Amino acid sequence: MPQSAVQREALVSASPAQIRAASREQGWTGSTGGLAPGYLQANVAIVPAADAVSFLTFAQRNPRPCPVVDILEPGQTEPTLAPGCDIRTDLPRYRVFEHGVAVAEPHDLDAWWRDDLVTVLLGCSATFEHALVGAGIPVHHLTAGSGAAPMYITTRECVPSDRFHGPLVVTMRSIPGDRVSEAILLSAGFPEAHGTPVHVGDPTPLGIDLDRPDFGGPVVVPPGEVPVFWACGVTPQIVAQRSATPLMITHYPGCMLVTDRRSGASA
Amino acid sequence: MPQSAVQREALVSASPAQIRAASREQGWTGSTGGLAPGYLQANVAIVPAADAVSFLTFAQRNPRPCPVVDILEPGQTEPTLAPGCDIRTDLPRYRVFEHGVAVAEPHDLDAWWRDDLVTVLLGCSATFEHALVGAGIPVHHLTAGSGAAPMYITTRECVPSDRFHGPLVVTMRSIPGDRVSEAILLSAGFPEAHGTPVHVGDPTPLGIDLDRPDFGGPVVVPPGEVPVFWACGVTPQIVAQRSATPLMITHYPGCMLVTDRRSGASA
Repeated sequence: MPQSAVQREALVSASPAQIRAASREQGWTGSTGGLAPGYLQANVAIVPAADAVSFLTFAQRNPRPCPVVDILEPGQTEPTLAPGCDIRTDLPRYRVFEHGVAVAEPHDLDAWWRDDLVTVLLGCSATFEHALVGAGIPVHHLTAGSGAAPMYITTRECVPSDRFHGPLVVTMRSIPGDRVSEAILLSAGFPEAHGTPVHVGDPTPLGIDLDRPDFGGPVVVPPGEVPVFWACGVTPQIVAQRSATPLMITHYPGCMLVTDRRSGASA
Repeated sequence: MPQSAVQREALVSASPAQIRAASREQGWTGSTGGLAPGYLQANVAIVPAADAVSFLTFAQRNPRPCPVVDILEPGQTEPTLAPGCDIRTDLPRYRVFEHGVAVAEPHDLDAWWRDDLVTVLLGCSATFEHALVGAGIPVHHLTAGSGAAPMYITTRECVPSDRFHGPLVVTMRSIPGDRVSEAILLSAGFPEAHGTPVHVGDPTPLGIDLDRPDFGGPVVVPPGEVPVFWACGVTPQIVAQRSATPLMITHYPGCMLVTDRRSGASA
Protein backbone atom coordinates (compact mmCIF):
# COMPACT_ATOMS: atom_id res chain seq x y z
CA MET A 1 0.00 0.00 0.00
CA PRO A 2 1.67 3.24 -1.08
CA GLN A 3 1.81 6.07 1.39
CA SER A 4 -0.67 8.74 0.41
CA ALA A 5 1.30 11.69 -0.93
CA VAL A 6 -1.75 13.93 -1.04
CA GLN A 7 -3.65 15.44 1.83
CA ARG A 8 -7.45 15.52 2.15
CA GLU A 9 -7.39 19.31 2.35
CA ALA A 10 -5.96 19.46 -1.16
CA LEU A 11 -8.98 17.58 -2.50
CA VAL A 12 -11.79 19.51 -0.81
CA SER A 13 -12.35 21.73 -3.82
CA ALA A 14 -11.03 19.28 -6.43
CA SER A 15 -13.04 18.12 -9.45
CA PRO A 16 -14.13 14.49 -9.78
CA ALA A 17 -11.37 13.93 -12.39
CA GLN A 18 -8.78 15.45 -10.06
CA ILE A 19 -9.89 13.21 -7.18
CA ARG A 20 -9.65 10.14 -9.42
CA ALA A 21 -6.22 11.23 -10.61
CA ALA A 22 -5.09 11.62 -6.99
CA SER A 23 -5.99 7.96 -6.40
CA ARG A 24 -4.41 6.79 -9.63
CA GLU A 25 -1.21 8.85 -9.64
CA GLN A 26 -0.61 10.28 -6.15
CA GLY A 27 -1.33 7.33 -3.89
CA TRP A 28 -4.47 8.87 -2.33
CA THR A 29 -6.17 6.19 -0.17
CA GLY A 30 -8.56 8.26 1.94
CA SER A 31 -12.34 8.47 2.08
CA THR A 32 -14.22 10.25 -0.67
CA GLY A 33 -17.03 11.11 1.75
CA GLY A 34 -17.73 14.83 1.68
CA LEU A 35 -15.63 15.44 -1.43
CA ALA A 36 -16.97 16.77 -4.76
CA PRO A 37 -20.34 17.94 -3.44
CA GLY A 38 -23.05 17.82 -6.09
CA TYR A 39 -21.48 14.90 -7.96
CA LEU A 40 -22.79 11.34 -7.85
CA GLN A 41 -20.50 9.00 -5.95
CA ALA A 42 -20.81 5.29 -6.65
CA ASN A 43 -20.33 2.10 -4.72
CA VAL A 44 -18.61 -0.53 -6.82
CA ALA A 45 -19.23 -4.26 -7.24
CA ILE A 46 -17.16 -6.24 -9.72
CA VAL A 47 -18.06 -9.86 -10.53
CA PRO A 48 -17.05 -12.43 -13.17
CA ALA A 49 -19.29 -12.42 -16.26
CA ALA A 50 -20.56 -15.87 -15.25
CA ASP A 51 -22.13 -14.30 -12.14
CA ALA A 52 -23.14 -10.97 -13.67
CA VAL A 53 -26.72 -11.78 -14.64
CA SER A 54 -27.42 -13.23 -11.20
CA PHE A 55 -25.91 -10.21 -9.47
CA LEU A 56 -27.76 -7.73 -11.68
CA THR A 57 -30.98 -9.59 -10.98
CA PHE A 58 -30.21 -9.36 -7.27
CA ALA A 59 -29.70 -5.60 -7.63
CA GLN A 60 -32.93 -5.21 -9.61
CA ARG A 61 -34.83 -7.00 -6.87
CA ASN A 62 -33.27 -4.86 -4.13
CA PRO A 63 -33.15 -1.38 -5.63
CA ARG A 64 -32.90 0.50 -2.35
CA PRO A 65 -29.61 -1.04 -1.17
CA CYS A 66 -28.41 -1.69 -4.76
CA PRO A 67 -29.49 1.13 -7.11
CA VAL A 68 -27.64 0.39 -10.38
CA VAL A 69 -26.32 3.58 -12.01
CA ASP A 70 -23.89 2.14 -14.56
CA ILE A 71 -22.83 -1.27 -15.91
CA LEU A 72 -19.54 -1.86 -17.73
CA GLU A 73 -19.28 -4.66 -20.27
CA PRO A 74 -16.92 -7.59 -19.52
CA GLY A 75 -13.36 -6.34 -19.33
CA GLN A 76 -14.37 -2.73 -19.88
CA THR A 77 -12.63 -0.31 -17.52
CA GLU A 78 -14.04 3.14 -18.42
CA PRO A 79 -17.45 3.94 -16.91
CA THR A 80 -19.90 6.00 -18.94
CA LEU A 81 -20.38 8.21 -15.89
CA ALA A 82 -16.67 8.99 -15.57
CA PRO A 83 -14.99 9.49 -18.97
CA GLY A 84 -11.25 8.95 -18.82
CA CYS A 85 -11.52 6.94 -15.61
CA ASP A 86 -9.87 3.55 -15.22
CA ILE A 87 -11.94 1.52 -12.78
CA ARG A 88 -8.82 -0.56 -11.88
CA THR A 89 -6.92 2.39 -10.43
CA ASP A 90 -9.22 5.36 -9.79
CA LEU A 91 -10.72 4.38 -6.46
CA PRO A 92 -8.63 5.14 -3.36
CA ARG A 93 -8.92 1.54 -2.18
CA TYR A 94 -10.65 -1.77 -2.97
CA ARG A 95 -11.68 -4.96 -1.20
CA VAL A 96 -11.30 -8.38 -2.80
CA PHE A 97 -13.55 -11.24 -1.65
CA GLU A 98 -12.76 -14.85 -2.55
CA HIS A 99 -15.33 -17.47 -1.51
CA GLY A 100 -16.78 -15.04 1.01
CA VAL A 101 -13.50 -14.02 2.60
CA ALA A 102 -11.91 -10.57 2.27
CA VAL A 103 -8.45 -11.58 1.06
CA ALA A 104 -7.02 -8.19 0.12
CA GLU A 105 -7.61 -4.44 0.37
CA PRO A 106 -5.43 -3.19 -2.47
CA HIS A 107 -4.84 0.32 -3.75
CA ASP A 108 -5.29 -0.84 -7.35
CA LEU A 109 -6.55 -3.95 -9.14
CA ASP A 110 -3.47 -4.67 -11.28
CA ALA A 111 -2.99 -8.06 -9.60
CA TRP A 112 -6.68 -8.98 -9.81
CA TRP A 113 -8.06 -7.75 -13.09
CA ARG A 114 -9.45 -10.23 -15.61
CA ASP A 115 -11.01 -9.63 -18.99
CA ASP A 116 -14.22 -11.36 -17.91
CA LEU A 117 -14.91 -8.98 -15.01
CA VAL A 118 -18.14 -6.97 -15.10
CA THR A 119 -18.20 -3.72 -13.10
CA VAL A 120 -21.48 -2.52 -11.62
CA LEU A 121 -21.75 0.99 -10.18
CA LEU A 122 -24.32 1.49 -7.44
CA GLY A 123 -25.66 4.75 -6.07
CA CYS A 124 -24.38 5.94 -2.71
CA SER A 125 -25.78 7.96 0.17
CA ALA A 126 -22.92 10.47 0.08
CA THR A 127 -24.98 12.10 -2.66
CA PHE A 128 -28.15 12.89 -0.77
CA GLU A 129 -26.36 13.80 2.44
CA HIS A 130 -25.23 16.93 0.63
CA ALA A 131 -28.89 17.72 -0.03
CA LEU A 132 -29.77 17.26 3.65
CA VAL A 133 -26.95 19.58 4.68
CA GLY A 134 -27.99 22.06 2.01
CA ALA A 135 -31.51 22.11 3.48
CA GLY A 136 -30.13 22.83 6.94
CA ILE A 137 -30.99 19.37 8.29
CA PRO A 138 -28.27 18.26 10.69
CA VAL A 139 -26.22 15.20 9.70
CA HIS A 140 -24.52 14.35 12.97
CA HIS A 141 -21.81 12.02 11.69
CA LEU A 142 -20.60 14.74 9.32
CA THR A 143 -20.47 17.42 11.99
CA ALA A 144 -18.88 14.92 14.40
CA GLY A 145 -16.15 14.46 11.84
CA SER A 146 -16.31 10.66 11.75
CA GLY A 147 -17.36 10.79 8.10
CA ALA A 148 -19.48 7.63 8.26
CA ALA A 149 -23.01 7.09 9.52
CA PRO A 150 -23.55 4.18 11.93
CA MET A 151 -24.31 1.02 9.91
CA TYR A 152 -26.25 -2.04 11.01
CA ILE A 153 -26.62 -5.53 9.55
CA THR A 154 -30.35 -6.15 9.94
CA THR A 155 -32.26 -9.42 10.19
CA ARG A 156 -34.27 -8.44 7.12
CA GLU A 157 -33.21 -10.60 4.17
CA CYS A 158 -32.81 -9.11 0.73
CA VAL A 159 -34.75 -10.79 -2.07
CA PRO A 160 -32.29 -13.47 -3.28
CA SER A 161 -31.21 -14.21 -6.85
CA ASP A 162 -29.53 -17.51 -7.63
CA ARG A 163 -26.50 -17.71 -5.33
CA PHE A 164 -26.67 -14.08 -4.25
CA HIS A 165 -28.34 -13.61 -0.90
CA GLY A 166 -27.82 -11.80 2.37
CA PRO A 167 -29.20 -9.29 4.85
CA LEU A 168 -30.16 -5.70 4.27
CA VAL A 169 -27.59 -3.30 5.72
CA VAL A 170 -28.85 0.10 6.83
CA THR A 171 -27.38 3.44 7.84
CA MET A 172 -28.92 5.49 10.65
CA ARG A 173 -29.26 9.24 10.69
CA SER A 174 -31.03 10.94 13.59
CA ILE A 175 -33.38 13.63 12.29
CA PRO A 176 -35.25 16.33 14.27
CA GLY A 177 -38.91 15.33 14.46
CA ASP A 178 -40.04 18.45 12.62
CA ARG A 179 -37.68 17.83 9.68
CA VAL A 180 -38.48 14.17 8.99
CA SER A 181 -41.10 14.92 6.33
CA GLU A 182 -38.65 17.19 4.53
CA ALA A 183 -35.80 14.65 4.80
CA ILE A 184 -37.99 11.93 3.32
CA LEU A 185 -39.27 14.12 0.48
CA LEU A 186 -35.69 15.19 -0.26
CA SER A 187 -34.39 11.64 -0.34
CA ALA A 188 -37.28 10.61 -2.61
CA GLY A 189 -35.61 12.86 -5.18
CA PHE A 190 -32.51 10.63 -5.08
CA PRO A 191 -33.71 7.15 -6.11
CA GLU A 192 -30.16 6.45 -7.31
CA ALA A 193 -28.83 7.22 -3.82
CA HIS A 194 -30.97 4.68 -1.88
CA GLY A 195 -34.13 6.81 -2.10
CA THR A 196 -36.51 7.04 0.86
CA PRO A 197 -35.84 5.54 4.31
CA VAL A 198 -36.66 1.87 4.77
CA HIS A 199 -37.57 2.38 8.43
CA VAL A 200 -38.30 5.18 10.92
CA GLY A 201 -38.28 4.96 14.72
CA ASP A 202 -38.17 1.91 16.99
CA PRO A 203 -35.60 -0.40 15.29
CA THR A 204 -36.93 -3.60 16.87
CA PRO A 205 -38.41 -4.89 13.59
CA LEU A 206 -34.94 -4.56 12.00
CA GLY A 207 -33.48 -6.92 14.62
CA ILE A 208 -30.73 -4.48 15.62
CA ASP A 209 -29.47 -2.78 18.77
CA LEU A 210 -29.34 0.96 18.12
CA ASP A 211 -26.36 1.40 20.45
CA ARG A 212 -24.28 -1.29 18.75
CA PRO A 213 -23.68 -0.49 15.08
CA ASP A 214 -21.72 -3.04 13.04
CA PHE A 215 -19.69 -0.32 11.32
CA GLY A 216 -19.27 3.45 11.43
CA GLY A 217 -20.65 5.73 14.04
CA PRO A 218 -21.07 7.54 16.37
CA VAL A 219 -24.68 6.87 17.43
CA VAL A 220 -26.24 10.24 18.27
CA VAL A 221 -30.02 10.61 18.84
CA PRO A 222 -30.69 13.85 20.76
CA PRO A 223 -34.06 14.41 22.49
CA GLY A 224 -36.79 15.39 20.04
CA GLU A 225 -35.09 13.51 17.22
CA VAL A 226 -35.95 10.14 15.72
CA PRO A 227 -33.65 7.47 14.23
CA VAL A 228 -34.20 7.20 10.48
CA PHE A 229 -32.81 4.21 8.57
CA TRP A 230 -31.80 4.17 4.93
CA ALA A 231 -30.67 1.16 2.88
CA CYS A 232 -26.88 1.06 2.70
CA GLY A 233 -24.42 0.40 -0.10
CA VAL A 234 -22.39 -1.88 2.17
CA THR A 235 -25.12 -4.48 1.55
CA PRO A 236 -23.31 -6.00 -1.49
CA GLN A 237 -20.16 -6.54 0.60
CA ILE A 238 -22.09 -8.52 3.20
CA VAL A 239 -23.82 -10.35 0.37
CA ALA A 240 -20.39 -11.22 -1.05
CA GLN A 241 -19.44 -12.74 2.30
CA ARG A 242 -22.67 -14.62 2.86
CA SER A 243 -23.01 -15.85 -0.71
CA ALA A 244 -19.38 -17.02 -0.86
CA THR A 245 -19.12 -16.51 -4.60
CA PRO A 246 -15.68 -17.29 -6.06
CA LEU A 247 -14.76 -13.65 -6.63
CA MET A 248 -16.29 -10.24 -5.92
CA ILE A 249 -14.37 -6.99 -5.79
CA THR A 250 -15.86 -3.92 -4.13
CA HIS A 251 -14.80 -0.44 -3.12
CA TYR A 252 -13.29 -0.19 0.35
CA PRO A 253 -15.93 1.30 2.68
CA GLY A 254 -15.91 5.08 2.32
CA CYS A 255 -13.66 4.99 -0.77
CA MET A 256 -16.19 5.43 -3.54
CA LEU A 257 -15.87 6.24 -7.22
CA VAL A 258 -16.46 9.95 -7.77
CA THR A 259 -18.28 10.28 -11.09
CA ASP A 260 -18.76 13.26 -13.40
CA ARG A 261 -22.54 13.01 -13.15
CA ARG A 262 -24.31 15.83 -11.38
CA SER A 263 -26.45 14.34 -8.64
CA GLY A 264 -29.92 15.37 -7.58
CA ALA A 265 -33.56 14.91 -8.38
CA SER A 266 -32.80 15.08 -12.09
CA ALA A 267 -30.11 12.37 -11.93
CA MET B 1 -81.36 19.57 18.60
CA PRO B 2 -83.54 17.33 16.44
CA GLN B 3 -83.24 13.60 16.89
CA SER B 4 -81.45 12.08 13.93
CA ALA B 5 -83.97 10.21 11.82
CA VAL B 6 -81.30 8.64 9.64
CA GLN B 7 -78.80 5.94 10.58
CA ARG B 8 -75.10 6.03 9.72
CA GLU B 9 -75.41 2.73 7.84
CA ALA B 10 -77.79 4.38 5.37
CA LEU B 11 -75.10 6.92 4.45
CA VAL B 12 -72.12 4.62 3.98
CA SER B 13 -72.59 4.45 0.22
CA ALA B 14 -74.37 7.79 -0.15
CA SER B 15 -73.17 10.55 -2.48
CA PRO B 16 -71.94 13.88 -1.09
CA ALA B 17 -75.24 15.52 -2.10
CA GLN B 18 -77.22 12.77 -0.33
CA ILE B 19 -75.16 13.19 2.85
CA ARG B 20 -75.73 16.95 2.79
CA ALA B 21 -79.45 16.40 2.22
CA ALA B 22 -79.56 14.03 5.19
CA SER B 23 -78.20 16.84 7.38
CA ARG B 24 -80.54 19.46 5.89
CA GLU B 25 -83.77 17.47 5.66
CA GLN B 26 -83.49 14.36 7.84
CA GLY B 27 -81.90 15.64 11.02
CA TRP B 28 -78.62 13.77 10.56
CA THR B 29 -76.17 14.99 13.24
CA GLY B 30 -73.48 12.29 13.13
CA SER B 31 -69.84 12.34 12.09
CA THR B 32 -68.95 12.49 8.41
CA GLY B 33 -65.66 10.70 9.09
CA GLY B 34 -65.33 7.66 6.82
CA LEU B 35 -68.26 8.68 4.61
CA ALA B 36 -68.03 9.46 0.86
CA PRO B 37 -64.53 8.03 0.35
CA GLY B 38 -62.66 9.78 -2.46
CA TYR B 39 -64.41 13.13 -1.92
CA LEU B 40 -62.83 16.14 -0.28
CA GLN B 41 -64.31 16.90 3.13
CA ALA B 42 -63.88 20.41 4.49
CA ASN B 43 -63.53 22.00 7.89
CA VAL B 44 -65.52 25.20 8.11
CA ALA B 45 -64.70 28.59 9.62
CA ILE B 46 -67.20 31.46 9.29
CA VAL B 47 -66.25 34.98 10.34
CA PRO B 48 -67.71 38.47 9.91
CA ALA B 49 -66.44 40.31 6.85
CA ALA B 50 -64.65 42.76 9.15
CA ASP B 51 -62.41 39.88 10.33
CA ALA B 52 -62.15 38.01 7.04
CA VAL B 53 -58.93 39.49 5.73
CA SER B 54 -57.18 38.90 9.04
CA PHE B 55 -58.41 35.31 9.20
CA LEU B 56 -57.47 34.57 5.59
CA THR B 57 -54.03 36.01 6.26
CA PHE B 58 -53.76 33.76 9.30
CA ALA B 59 -54.67 30.76 7.13
CA GLN B 60 -52.16 31.74 4.45
CA ARG B 61 -49.44 31.92 7.08
CA ASN B 62 -50.36 28.53 8.54
CA PRO B 63 -51.20 26.42 5.50
CA ARG B 64 -50.72 23.06 7.17
CA PRO B 65 -53.42 23.45 9.84
CA CYS B 66 -55.49 25.83 7.66
CA PRO B 67 -55.33 24.84 3.96
CA VAL B 68 -57.94 27.07 2.27
CA VAL B 69 -59.92 25.17 -0.37
CA ASP B 70 -62.84 27.57 -0.93
CA ILE B 71 -63.91 31.07 0.11
CA LEU B 72 -67.50 32.29 -0.10
CA GLU B 73 -68.22 36.00 -0.53
CA PRO B 74 -70.00 37.85 2.30
CA GLY B 75 -73.47 36.42 2.77
CA GLN B 76 -72.96 33.77 0.09
CA THR B 77 -74.21 30.33 1.16
CA GLU B 78 -73.41 28.03 -1.80
CA PRO B 79 -69.79 26.82 -1.99
CA THR B 80 -68.18 26.40 -5.40
CA LEU B 81 -67.08 22.94 -4.30
CA ALA B 82 -70.62 21.80 -3.45
CA PRO B 83 -73.20 23.09 -5.95
CA GLY B 84 -76.71 23.16 -4.50
CA CYS B 85 -75.37 23.14 -0.93
CA ASP B 86 -76.54 25.63 1.67
CA ILE B 87 -73.72 26.18 4.13
CA ARG B 88 -76.27 27.18 6.81
CA THR B 89 -77.96 23.78 6.92
CA ASP B 90 -75.85 21.13 5.19
CA LEU B 91 -73.39 20.27 7.94
CA PRO B 92 -74.61 17.80 10.58
CA ARG B 93 -73.68 20.18 13.38
CA TYR B 94 -71.96 23.52 14.06
CA ARG B 95 -70.21 25.33 16.89
CA VAL B 96 -70.70 29.02 17.57
CA PHE B 97 -68.01 30.97 19.41
CA GLU B 98 -68.69 34.43 20.84
CA HIS B 99 -65.74 36.26 22.35
CA GLY B 100 -63.87 32.98 22.66
CA VAL B 101 -66.64 31.01 24.29
CA ALA B 102 -68.55 28.18 22.61
CA VAL B 103 -72.12 29.41 23.15
CA ALA B 104 -74.04 26.94 20.97
CA GLU B 105 -73.72 23.70 18.99
CA PRO B 106 -76.70 24.03 16.66
CA HIS B 107 -77.91 21.72 13.91
CA ASP B 108 -78.39 24.69 11.55
CA LEU B 109 -77.39 28.36 11.46
CA ASP B 110 -80.86 29.88 10.99
CA ALA B 111 -80.57 31.74 14.28
CA TRP B 112 -77.02 32.93 13.61
CA TRP B 113 -76.71 33.78 9.94
CA ARG B 114 -75.86 37.35 8.90
CA ASP B 115 -75.34 38.80 5.47
CA ASP B 116 -71.82 39.92 6.35
CA LEU B 117 -70.55 36.41 7.19
CA VAL B 118 -67.67 35.02 5.14
CA THR B 119 -67.38 31.25 4.95
CA VAL B 120 -63.91 29.70 4.57
CA LEU B 121 -63.58 26.00 3.75
CA LEU B 122 -60.40 24.31 4.95
CA GLY B 123 -59.02 20.91 3.89
CA CYS B 124 -59.44 18.03 6.29
CA SER B 125 -57.47 14.88 7.10
CA ALA B 126 -60.46 12.59 6.46
CA THR B 127 -59.38 12.87 2.83
CA PHE B 128 -55.88 11.43 3.02
CA GLU B 129 -56.82 8.80 5.58
CA HIS B 130 -58.65 7.06 2.76
CA ALA B 131 -55.41 7.05 0.79
CA LEU B 132 -53.51 5.51 3.73
CA VAL B 133 -56.12 2.79 4.09
CA GLY B 134 -56.06 2.24 0.33
CA ALA B 135 -52.30 1.67 0.49
CA GLY B 136 -52.73 -0.89 3.25
CA ILE B 137 -51.25 1.35 5.94
CA PRO B 138 -53.11 0.75 9.20
CA VAL B 139 -55.10 3.68 10.63
CA HIS B 140 -55.75 2.48 14.16
CA HIS B 141 -58.52 4.91 15.16
CA LEU B 142 -60.54 3.83 12.13
CA THR B 143 -60.18 0.11 12.85
CA ALA B 144 -60.81 0.79 16.55
CA GLY B 145 -64.10 2.34 15.51
CA SER B 146 -63.64 5.57 17.43
CA GLY B 147 -63.66 7.54 14.19
CA ALA B 148 -61.31 10.25 15.44
CA ALA B 149 -57.54 10.32 15.77
CA PRO B 150 -56.12 11.51 19.09
CA MET B 151 -55.65 15.29 18.99
CA TYR B 152 -53.25 17.43 20.98
CA ILE B 153 -52.99 21.16 21.60
CA THR B 154 -49.25 21.77 21.23
CA THR B 155 -47.07 24.52 22.67
CA ARG B 156 -46.07 25.51 19.15
CA GLU B 157 -47.67 28.84 18.25
CA CYS B 158 -49.11 29.42 14.81
CA VAL B 159 -47.88 32.49 12.96
CA PRO B 160 -50.34 35.20 14.11
CA SER B 161 -52.27 37.66 11.97
CA ASP B 162 -53.81 40.71 13.60
CA ARG B 163 -56.05 39.41 16.39
CA PHE B 164 -55.92 35.79 15.23
CA HIS B 165 -53.43 33.72 17.17
CA GLY B 166 -53.23 30.39 18.95
CA PRO B 167 -51.45 27.06 19.20
CA LEU B 168 -51.01 24.44 16.52
CA VAL B 169 -53.29 21.44 17.10
CA VAL B 170 -52.06 18.09 15.78
CA THR B 171 -53.49 14.64 15.20
CA MET B 172 -51.43 11.52 15.91
CA ARG B 173 -51.42 8.39 13.81
CA SER B 174 -49.06 5.54 14.71
CA ILE B 175 -47.39 4.19 11.58
CA PRO B 176 -45.28 1.01 11.18
CA GLY B 177 -41.63 2.03 10.86
CA ASP B 178 -41.30 0.51 7.41
CA ARG B 179 -44.32 2.42 6.04
CA VAL B 180 -43.44 5.93 7.26
CA SER B 181 -41.73 6.96 4.02
CA GLU B 182 -44.75 5.83 2.02
CA ALA B 183 -47.20 7.56 4.39
CA ILE B 184 -45.28 10.82 4.08
CA LEU B 185 -45.00 10.62 0.29
CA LEU B 186 -48.74 9.85 0.11
CA SER B 187 -49.71 12.75 2.33
CA ALA B 188 -47.47 15.07 0.29
CA GLY B 189 -49.98 14.44 -2.51
CA PHE B 190 -52.72 16.01 -0.38
CA PRO B 191 -51.55 19.56 0.33
CA GLU B 192 -55.22 20.52 0.75
CA ALA B 193 -55.61 17.89 3.49
CA HIS B 194 -52.81 19.14 5.80
CA GLY B 195 -50.02 17.72 3.61
CA THR B 196 -46.96 16.12 5.19
CA PRO B 197 -46.53 15.47 8.92
CA VAL B 198 -45.30 18.37 11.04
CA HIS B 199 -43.48 16.01 13.44
CA VAL B 200 -42.34 12.39 13.71
CA GLY B 201 -41.32 10.50 16.86
CA ASP B 202 -40.54 11.84 20.34
CA PRO B 203 -43.26 14.49 20.92
CA THR B 204 -41.29 16.40 23.57
CA PRO B 205 -40.66 19.38 21.25
CA LEU B 206 -44.45 19.69 20.76
CA GLY B 207 -44.92 20.11 24.51
CA ILE B 208 -47.49 17.33 24.75
CA ASP B 209 -47.98 14.10 26.68
CA LEU B 210 -48.61 11.30 24.18
CA ASP B 211 -50.87 9.45 26.60
CA ARG B 212 -53.09 12.45 27.27
CA PRO B 213 -54.74 13.73 24.09
CA ASP B 214 -56.94 16.81 24.38
CA PHE B 215 -59.60 15.30 22.09
CA GLY B 216 -60.29 12.04 20.26
CA GLY B 217 -58.44 8.82 20.76
CA PRO B 218 -57.56 6.08 21.50
CA VAL B 219 -53.77 6.35 21.70
CA VAL B 220 -52.32 3.21 20.12
CA VAL B 221 -48.58 2.89 19.34
CA PRO B 222 -47.67 -0.81 18.93
CA PRO B 223 -44.01 -1.93 19.08
CA GLY B 224 -42.16 -1.21 15.85
CA GLU B 225 -44.39 1.76 15.09
CA VAL B 226 -43.71 5.45 15.49
CA PRO B 227 -46.08 8.31 16.37
CA VAL B 228 -46.56 10.61 13.40
CA PHE B 229 -48.16 14.03 13.87
CA TRP B 230 -50.13 15.95 11.27
CA ALA B 231 -51.49 19.49 11.57
CA CYS B 232 -55.19 19.37 12.54
CA GLY B 233 -58.23 21.25 11.33
CA VAL B 234 -59.34 21.78 14.92
CA THR B 235 -56.68 24.50 15.09
CA PRO B 236 -59.11 27.29 14.01
CA GLN B 237 -61.50 26.35 16.83
CA ILE B 238 -58.76 26.74 19.44
CA VAL B 239 -57.73 29.96 17.69
CA ALA B 240 -61.33 31.19 17.99
CA GLN B 241 -61.18 30.56 21.73
CA ARG B 242 -57.74 32.08 22.28
CA SER B 243 -58.32 35.07 20.01
CA ALA B 244 -61.72 35.84 21.54
CA THR B 245 -63.02 37.43 18.35
CA PRO B 246 -66.65 38.61 18.56
CA LEU B 247 -68.00 35.78 16.39
CA MET B 248 -66.64 32.65 14.72
CA ILE B 249 -68.74 29.72 13.59
CA THR B 250 -67.10 26.38 12.84
CA HIS B 251 -68.15 22.82 12.07
CA TYR B 252 -68.66 20.62 15.12
CA PRO B 253 -65.60 18.32 15.42
CA GLY B 254 -66.07 15.34 13.11
CA CYS B 255 -69.07 16.91 11.32
CA MET B 256 -67.43 18.26 8.17
CA LEU B 257 -68.84 19.54 4.91
CA VAL B 258 -68.75 16.76 2.31
CA THR B 259 -67.94 18.42 -1.03
CA ASP B 260 -68.38 17.21 -4.59
CA ARG B 261 -64.67 17.58 -5.34
CA ARG B 262 -62.73 14.41 -5.93
CA SER B 263 -59.80 14.33 -3.54
CA GLY B 264 -56.26 13.15 -4.21
CA ALA B 265 -52.95 14.25 -5.58
CA SER B 266 -54.67 16.09 -8.42
CA ALA B 267 -57.01 17.98 -6.08
